[in-house]
Amino acid sequence: MTYCVGMTLNKGLILMSDTRTNAGVDDIASVKKMHTWKVDGERVITIMTAGNLATTQALVSLLSERSVKPKKRDPSILKAPTMFQVARLVGDTLQEVIQENARTGQEASSIFNATVILAGQIKGMPPRLFLLYPEGNFIEASSDNPFFQIGETKYGKPILVRAYDPDMSHEAAMKLLLVSFDSTIKANLSVGLPLDFQIYETDSFELEAEGRIEAKDPYFRQVSDNWGDALKHAFKELPEYKFD
Amino acid sequence: MTYCVGMTLNKGLILMSDTRTNAGVDDIASVKKMHTWKVDGERVITIMTAGNLATTQALVSLLSERSVKPKKRDPSILKAPTMFQVARLVGDTLQEVIQENARTGQEASSIFNATVILAGQIKGMPPRLFLLYPEGNFIEASSDNPFFQIGETKYGKPILVRAYDPDMSHEAAMKLLLVSFDSTIKANLSVGLPLDFQIYETDSFELEAEGRIEAKDPYFRQVSDNWGDALKHAFKELPEYKFD
Repeated sequence: MTYCVGMTLNKGLILMSDTRTNAGVDDIASVKKMHTWKVDGERVITIMTAGNLATTQALVSLLSERSVKPKKRDPSILKAPTMFQVARLVGDTLQEVIQENARTGQEASSIFNATVILAGQIKGMPPRLFLLYPEGNFIEASSDNPFFQIGETKYGKPILVRAYDPDMSHEAAMKLLLVSFDSTIKANLSVGLPLDFQIYETDSFELEAEGRIEAKDPYFRQVSDNWGDALKHAFKELPEYKFD
Repeated sequence: MTYCVGMTLNKGLILMSDTRTNAGVDDIASVKKMHTWKVDGERVITIMTAGNLATTQALVSLLSERSVKPKKRDPSILKAPTMFQVARLVGDTLQEVIQENARTGQEASSIFNATVILAGQIKGMPPRLFLLYPEGNFIEASSDNPFFQIGETKYGKPILVRAYDPDMSHEAAMKLLLVSFDSTIKANLSVGLPLDFQIYETDSFELEAEGRIEAKDPYFRQVSDNWGDALKHAFKELPEYKFD
């Protein structure tokens, strides 16, 4: 599995992804699932991927190759005029990779599937966040639906739903994502540290912050330890049930 | 989907199940998923079921019929000498129902699947809690693994893991289950109120409490409202992230 979250904030975007990949519990490795393309002062585009690793790596390689040497029939995400067109390009490329693998005659074509979160901004337009399906189509975040999760989404969702606030600071958003990732990592072995993150401030056209949270990161450990106690305390504070 | 939890406590057992059943989002109904058989002063046996409704209803009907008129080849859960033997009987009956449906030549036999939580006590032996798989085999709860969930298990698990305590009072256990069910109901439309519950105290051989929590239940509403605020407060109390 995998866990990635992309979140819109009034100030910009925040993204986080885990790095664990596995082909069975006895075959795990660490892989970066967050990839960025930039044109200085003009655009920043990041994708995060979940699903079959061969598919997602082929997707990233094709997007990169085509942005370096674009042909007419393979337009580049660095030239596409809008984020909507970038999403169509990424979606088409994803569909192309999956179909190519499925065409070999393998029956379980669904195992080649992948899902993508796409985030970015092109000059003159607002930042946008998309969720792309293996079929190549996609949906966009809005104020009703301000974040997307891919991979193992369930364990970490309740706290996102409860504590998300579009006005929150970058620091608070980092804290929220780390709590959500901690709940997921504790429950699903196929999601694991280190975690990659990126923070993008609207109209900056550069990454305000990016980095990697390692397993020994003191802040992550503090959040992980304290959250259990905080939950227990919150639970204790709720009124008691009374039997009739 | 469905959500049921069976939990061992030092004092006995507590069980809770939702009542929603659906064949698509446009075809929902309310059905009891908790069924009890008793022999006064000698045994109390309860099962909760998740999965294909035709399968789970057939299972309950067969168990009931055979406990009224047991034949030699169909022994009764009211006569079985131990809870382990009861679990084998329920497992065999479950497997029998699923195989009968699969034998009609339907391809997707997995759609007939069901999972069962079995709880109870027979005089002279301690109370026991089992989780039964569609294959008819089963596992038992222990101090390392003191509760079982079936159906939509993920959203409601983190709070169970964090706040469970085998010494907790029945009131606290009710509160814990209601918080866990609230998180699940908020996230998955196929889990819904009302909720059935049962509390069993060791060596009582009767149900200490049983009942149904309706959607308008004031305590449930209070927990549901307050838990969101409590989570937000707990989140706020965590130390802030600091960018380097």
